Amino acid sequence: MSYTQLVDQLIHALRSLPGIGPRSAQRMAFYLLQQGRNDGLSLAKTLEQTLTQVGNCKRCRTFSEHDTCNICSNTKRDSSLLCIVETPIDILAIEHTNSYRGLYFVLMGHLSPIDGLGPNEIGINELSSLLNSENEIKEIIIATNPTVEGEATAQYIANLAHLMEKFKCTRIAHGIPFGGELEYTDSNTLAQALAKRTEI
Amino acid sequence: MSYTQLVDQLIHALRSLPGIGPRSAQRMAFYLLQQGRNDGLSLAKTLEQTLTQVGNCKRCRTFSEHDTCNICSNTKRDSSLLCIVETPIDILAIEHTNSYRGLYFVLMGHLSPIDGLGPNEIGINELSSLLNSENEIKEIIIATNPTVEGEATAQYIANLAHLMEKFKCTRIAHGIPFGGELEYTDSNTLAQALAKRTEI
Repeated sequence: MSYTQLVDQLIHALRSLPGIGPRSAQRMAFYLLQQGRNDGLSLAKTLEQTLTQVGNCKRCRTFSEHDTCNICSNTKRDSSLLCIVETPIDILAIEHTNSYRGLYFVLMGHLSPIDGLGPNEIGINELSSLLNSENEIKEIIIATNPTVEGEATAQYIANLAHLMEKFKCTRIAHGIPFGGELEYTDSNTLAQALAKRTEI
Repeated sequence: MSYTQLVDQLIHALRSLPGIGPRSAQRMAFYLLQQGRNDGLSLAKTLEQTLTQVGNCKRCRTFSEHDTCNICSNTKRDSSLLCIVETPIDILAIEHTNSYRGLYFVLMGHLSPIDGLGPNEIGINELSSLLNSENEIKEIIIATNPTVEGEATAQYIANLAHLMEKFKCTRIAHGIPFGGELEYTDSNTLAQALAKRTEI
């Protein structure tokens, strides 16, 4: 059953948000019309502003409204370390740890030939030229996700780095997460944790 | 940890949607920036358009971009029946049943003194003048929710209607929902179902 044309249009448009199905979209639309008109209008403005003004940092490819992002343009960061991640949100997760002071490079994805994502789509060219041009880099830390695609991407970048013979190339550790239990850990992770054991 | 100013602003604005917490808002913002810019921009446009152009039907108070909504202006509807509901979404639910051909009146809420919602806030004045002016009404069906506030609202309207002595006043039936099981029905509902039993 259709409502009025504009309300239907709004419900349809809200469904383009990730994780929002027809019921939630309907609930949101009626909420906005009934008691959230100002919030909705300011959301519209912010959406328009953010989506037109936020581009990518020309050095690390993360989202930024300036040519160079806050992290890349911060001279206090350690430019001898370069951490390579899949998405801008991963930068946030790493920054949250307060234990990394180096720079980043964002692939904006991972190698996935089945989805048509090859080296060109995930910025390997940009990464290569960055690695070639920035001579202060001493170590690259590959922090792609520990998934099949993430591992393949990590391996691809490691091969590239080894050919350059300019810096150390590391991969973030896999193992049992803090607070996890052996009983409930999948066998892949457990096998990794055993293989990569360290002396104490 | 804050991201860039505009991205933070977008995350904050998305949180004004009902049911969206900080994590979902973050996920939505990054999704929109990464792969949904066009969807996001068209959402912004639709939000702006709908929230500024959709008002209330001057007869039944439901949302409508015209002075009078599609249902009120449909001459094929049975104007001897008036169904009173709490919200526009309830109209949708009743229309879905395909078993009602009368008109509606939307309270836009229910009596709730604790939230400062008295008769004036839920359009009782508008309802009174509608009931006074439309002489073809033969029955009003009170279809507020079977909650404490909904019942109080129903009782209030019923008293009003009885004073007018112009038409029949009915309340939608309460009972065991179709497909429900006695075992899992709450005792209030079951007590109502017993008290309102009908001959077969």
